[in-house]
Amino acid sequence: MKILIVNDDGINSKGIMALAKRLQMEHEIYVVAPLTEQSAVGHAITMKIPLRIFKIEREGSFFGYAVDGTPADCIKIGIRNILKITPDIVISGINNGSNAAINVIYSGTVSGAREAAIMNIPSIAVSVASHDVKDFSFAAEIANKFAYLVKENGLPNGTLLNINIPDLPKQKIKGIKVTRQSMSRWDDVYEKRVDPYGKDYYWLTGSMIEHPNENDSFDYFANLNGYISVTPIHFDLTDYSTFEKYQNFEF
Amino acid sequence: MKILIVNDDGINSKGIMALAKRLQMEHEIYVVAPLTEQSAVGHAITMKIPLRIFKIEREGSFFGYAVDGTPADCIKIGIRNILKITPDIVISGINNGSNAAINVIYSGTVSGAREAAIMNIPSIAVSVASHDVKDFSFAAEIANKFAYLVKENGLPNGTLLNINIPDLPKQKIKGIKVTRQSMSRWDDVYEKRVDPYGKDYYWLTGSMIEHPNENDSFDYFANLNGYISVTPIHFDLTDYSTFEKYQNFEF
Repeated sequence: MKILIVNDDGINSKGIMALAKRLQMEHEIYVVAPLTEQSAVGHAITMKIPLRIFKIEREGSFFGYAVDGTPADCIKIGIRNILKITPDIVISGINNGSNAAINVIYSGTVSGAREAAIMNIPSIAVSVASHDVKDFSFAAEIANKFAYLVKENGLPNGTLLNINIPDLPKQKIKGIKVTRQSMSRWDDVYEKRVDPYGKDYYWLTGSMIEHPNENDSFDYFANLNGYISVTPIHFDLTDYSTFEKYQNFEF
Repeated sequence: MKILIVNDDGINSKGIMALAKRLQMEHEIYVVAPLTEQSAVGHAITMKIPLRIFKIEREGSFFGYAVDGTPADCIKIGIRNILKITPDIVISGINNGSNAAINVIYSGTVSGAREAAIMNIPSIAVSVASHDVKDFSFAAEIANKFAYLVKENGLPNGTLLNINIPDLPKQKIKGIKVTRQSMSRWDDVYEKRVDPYGKDYYWLTGSMIEHPNENDSFDYFANLNGYISVTPIHFDLTDYSTFEKYQNFEF
């Protein structure tokens, strides 16, 4: 397959290296990734300033293209201006950190894959649910497995798979579950500090508020319970039940 | 009502001024908005660098707080650290530019309102579908009208109203339609230029590819046809039909 690889941790991250190494054993790969880390950048795109493209080498040979923008920018300019072909599939990752539950909204990794879905290209986002991942090789195997699964079974236009993998040794992973997006969200805490010049600044920290009445059919809880979660997501944000209710109003 | 106002065009934009002026005639308003323009920033949040908060005056008196981050940051830090109260409603806007169809995904305006919805606070995003809006006063009236409508009728937790208003004289607007998100999307074109030092750079431009088989029950087409569109949106991105289909697979 022709596979376009993107991520949000940047072209120098370990996760994208592991993904590229594994996929190039069986596929024709193209890498277009952000020049710098773009975590939590959401589905930002760059419109008010121009973009630049850089050729990147690894171990003395050509590795891919870096773009000084977001994951969504990389997909747009990567397909339209750099590759000038449509890949069979786009794989975004492997992300260092969970993109389950509310993180789907904030995630640059997911938005890279979603930008491909907007262009009707099948796509997968792959993340490991830990902020200090030592080994991405099992996650890279999973990415490769799902590339074939998507090729065989297809995805509707506009839908992508958001895969989150517990950061556990392979033998401790209980299996794969097709899941829904958990409604668990962050309890935000801003830690206030004072700079050397006497001015306040604030760091975002926080902990997850686990949504009640959810089980391991939801991505976040599947991961907590040792399962790989596979959540099909799309970008039609319409809330159809409220749409029906509000239809009846007189304005 | 206690209304928190945010936007993505920044605290110095005309749209937020018009909104604040209109709402303060009837409500207790709080303004927490980005220090600089954050258009197309999506649902980005700031985690890897700290935030700063600035008090902003207008015409010699206190107007609100500026945050050197994104619309979503403004809601998070605004409610948790600046206001320390929960507003009755959050209104994001008034945006200079359409946030219908695929722009919902890229929009900072929508993500400001959505961050409030994530916190279970009723919220509304308001945009005028033109990039050169001369007069926001009618849009400000619509925002005020919907603040009352949401108060009376409620919104489910996690749902917000995304309102787009054609940039037409009030008497030419045909009415209000409750709509779905159009699947129309951008045909991206990157315009290549050469800087004074001989290096290439790329500006994103493009035109809308109108989705076939849609009518004015979809936000983008409602606006084109002279209607105000009101689309209830939520942040459960699960594609339930693919979820059902993939449940049957053996992994």
